[in-house]
Amino acid sequence: MNDDHPSATLAAFAAKLRFEDIPAPVMRRAEDLLLDWFGSALAGKTGRPVQAIESFARLMGPAEGKSEVLISRRGTTPLFAAMVNAASSHFAEQDDVHNGSVFHPAAVVFPAVLAVAQATEASGRDLLTASVAGYEVGIRVGEFLGRSHYRIFHTTGTAGTVAAAAAVGRLLKLTPEQMLHAFGSAGTQAAGLWEFLRDAADSKQLHTAKAAGDGLMSAYLASDGFTGARRILEGKQGMAAGMSSDADPARLTDRLGERWTLAETSFKFHASCRHTHPAADALLQVMTRHELRTEQVASVTAHVHQGAIDVLGPVVNPQTVHQAKFSMGTVLGLIAQFGSAGLQEFETAYNDPRIAAFRKKVTMKLDGEVDTAYPARWIGKVTVATTDGRVLEGRVDEPKGDPGNTLSRDELEQKALRLAAFGAGATALEMRAAFERIWHIADEPVVGNLLPRGD
Amino acid sequence: MNDDHPSATLAAFAAKLRFEDIPAPVMRRAEDLLLDWFGSALAGKTGRPVQAIESFARLMGPAEGKSEVLISRRGTTPLFAAMVNAASSHFAEQDDVHNGSVFHPAAVVFPAVLAVAQATEASGRDLLTASVAGYEVGIRVGEFLGRSHYRIFHTTGTAGTVAAAAAVGRLLKLTPEQMLHAFGSAGTQAAGLWEFLRDAADSKQLHTAKAAGDGLMSAYLASDGFTGARRILEGKQGMAAGMSSDADPARLTDRLGERWTLAETSFKFHASCRHTHPAADALLQVMTRHELRTEQVASVTAHVHQGAIDVLGPVVNPQTVHQAKFSMGTVLGLIAQFGSAGLQEFETAYNDPRIAAFRKKVTMKLDGEVDTAYPARWIGKVTVATTDGRVLEGRVDEPKGDPGNTLSRDELEQKALRLAAFGAGATALEMRAAFERIWHIADEPVVGNLLPRGD
Repeated sequence: MNDDHPSATLAAFAAKLRFEDIPAPVMRRAEDLLLDWFGSALAGKTGRPVQAIESFARLMGPAEGKSEVLISRRGTTPLFAAMVNAASSHFAEQDDVHNGSVFHPAAVVFPAVLAVAQATEASGRDLLTASVAGYEVGIRVGEFLGRSHYRIFHTTGTAGTVAAAAAVGRLLKLTPEQMLHAFGSAGTQAAGLWEFLRDAADSKQLHTAKAAGDGLMSAYLASDGFTGARRILEGKQGMAAGMSSDADPARLTDRLGERWTLAETSFKFHASCRHTHPAADALLQVMTRHELRTEQVASVTAHVHQGAIDVLGPVVNPQTVHQAKFSMGTVLGLIAQFGSAGLQEFETAYNDPRIAAFRKKVTMKLDGEVDTAYPARWIGKVTVATTDGRVLEGRVDEPKGDPGNTLSRDELEQKALRLAAFGAGATALEMRAAFERIWHIADEPVVGNLLPRGD
Repeated sequence: MNDDHPSATLAAFAAKLRFEDIPAPVMRRAEDLLLDWFGSALAGKTGRPVQAIESFARLMGPAEGKSEVLISRRGTTPLFAAMVNAASSHFAEQDDVHNGSVFHPAAVVFPAVLAVAQATEASGRDLLTASVAGYEVGIRVGEFLGRSHYRIFHTTGTAGTVAAAAAVGRLLKLTPEQMLHAFGSAGTQAAGLWEFLRDAADSKQLHTAKAAGDGLMSAYLASDGFTGARRILEGKQGMAAGMSSDADPARLTDRLGERWTLAETSFKFHASCRHTHPAADALLQVMTRHELRTEQVASVTAHVHQGAIDVLGPVVNPQTVHQAKFSMGTVLGLIAQFGSAGLQEFETAYNDPRIAAFRKKVTMKLDGEVDTAYPARWIGKVTVATTDGRVLEGRVDEPKGDPGNTLSRDELEQKALRLAAFGAGATALEMRAAFERIWHIADEPVVGNLLPRGD
């Protein structure tokens, strides 16, 4: 442990991480996250931006290879499989999130790891160990870069590049020194700006694709002797110096090997922006507990953190399914109407007259307690006024999908089946076969395809 | 012209630029820059970091294609040819530079343009027009991002990504709207941190490779309908917001179509970091004028701008040839000893005891006049104290290679021959044939290979 050189400490941790060092519950959670990611990657199949990235991969990359492009069931080299699968993973907004770092690890870590594991014929244990390395590194880099970074930069793009480098680096068995160089190459490529949100542009898929691909490239280059900056994270002209004003280097090495940040990662339950989830769960609690019907609701006040207002506030009258996922009123309307805000509900009903009417009943209000707890905890609080004059309060301390309120393996399978069905990414039979593979991946001597190849 | 939306104005300029709109002297200078770049691209042939990127390209990319990898004389797809050629171009530190933006356009623009021109069978005129578009856009983006950006970020990596997108976008005949989306995708991928300099790491080659490749990808995606942020440069969460504190949007559209920034670009004469060149020329003047020998020099004070101190200051005791190119003391030592700081001098003598001894005699000092003039003008000023007690002043107002002190076509050919010979990148005969092609490229109906293919 070198307190004066946190990049080196973190790189050494990632390089030296062994399967045996990781507690069994963390490994089981890694399998949960892998299965959950697999569904998300298939859900992006019909996304136009995803298809554009796949077209680019076909134009520039090899038409054959051991690495699986999930949405098109073809093989290519790891770089292109990682890029396309990563683009696809983040499309349906159903992939996992780590609250404290506001980082979506699965979308960048698993695409890179799976592609390289398939190409190098790695074992399932190696795949899992590498994935844990990627989560632990990426989450700490996200926490290190802090809230000032997230105001301008998409942390999943930036920290995600280092996460992918760590994961692939572990799979390629980099030495600690090589891993540090891989971090250097990854950090100097790290990018991703929020500006695209203003135009609802396609950059989110590009950010995950590039984080996975660039991180992968960094690890391969390091394995070939290519060097990078030794202090790319904390150095005077490194990532934090350029892209953060509140970076805290102590976060980079916070309880390495004791605190498993992977196990803090949340599953997304609703098919909407994560900032809507706490209020959605709190409303569902009120609706269920008091057996309310939609028509009985006169108004809903969602008591939220500032970040929710920043991200969701601009969306008043959503024009697309994707935009509706960032509309608090729409999400709460779907919850009130259907008891669920899944991909299907959004697709068929986001602009249903009943939902549009409900939207107007919803307001967001900054709440001191909720805001102070964020981002470590995402508390949900709503006040519901009924048409017969009652005022009902709902509260959840951990939204559905958070570690203390997690999804069971059965719930995860159901979610993945819905995601696969949504874009016709795979049949239920194919999914069931893949589930079997994933639940027992630690026993696989060689990681193969998750789905049958296409024609 | 839309003053309120400079990204759109600049994108429209790049998309609409026609061969006929570009003055003949600018076109001739574009040919000069192309030839100068070609030599630089070959000079990187033996560079270990370049070879690592080429190995990665072989591992991940197709083994066939119309686009030429100059150092290995093989064909592949445009993405990989652009990346490898761009990595190679920046290795010998002999590629061109635009003073005002501190941006090296050739290393990112020509690799992307040549690769795509070969793949799409574009004409020589289209290649030149696209190259001009890339220079004009990239230089203005670099000027826009300003000095605060350059303190942390390698402008050739960041602005270079947008430059490559503009150039390839022009070649792919993007509409102004598509070009704006290409800018959006390029800007959100833009990266490159100076931290690597402290360790003499290999990131510089990675930055140019990725700028060329990522810009190319942005343009291809835009041609396929992929959208990006409409104000990636000047928006509230765009490049300047994230990576600059002194950005000036007026620079983005400064005299478009009237001021040709390509013609302001300087050729590099010495084989070192450009920040050393003014002082090198000033010292050469003193050594020549007073017929001094190295041993007669007691001390040299180089009066420099702050940027020189930022970039060169950390390099006290260079450990590699590459790092020596960022050592003011080494460069001035080679000038004093050999009258020249070329590739050969660096390779054979950067750590010669005489040079190491001279290094200790050199100090840099911030100079108000030089710093104020920078980056528009790079004034060279040195004070030399001799062992016999004289104090001699040297001064050059335009270093060799600047537009007012440029290289002739014969000097450019001689330089390119030296660069090609350095890494055995091509024979003199092959170079002469390529020169003929380049000097007449505006007449070529289809851009083909510049060199014969390998086995």
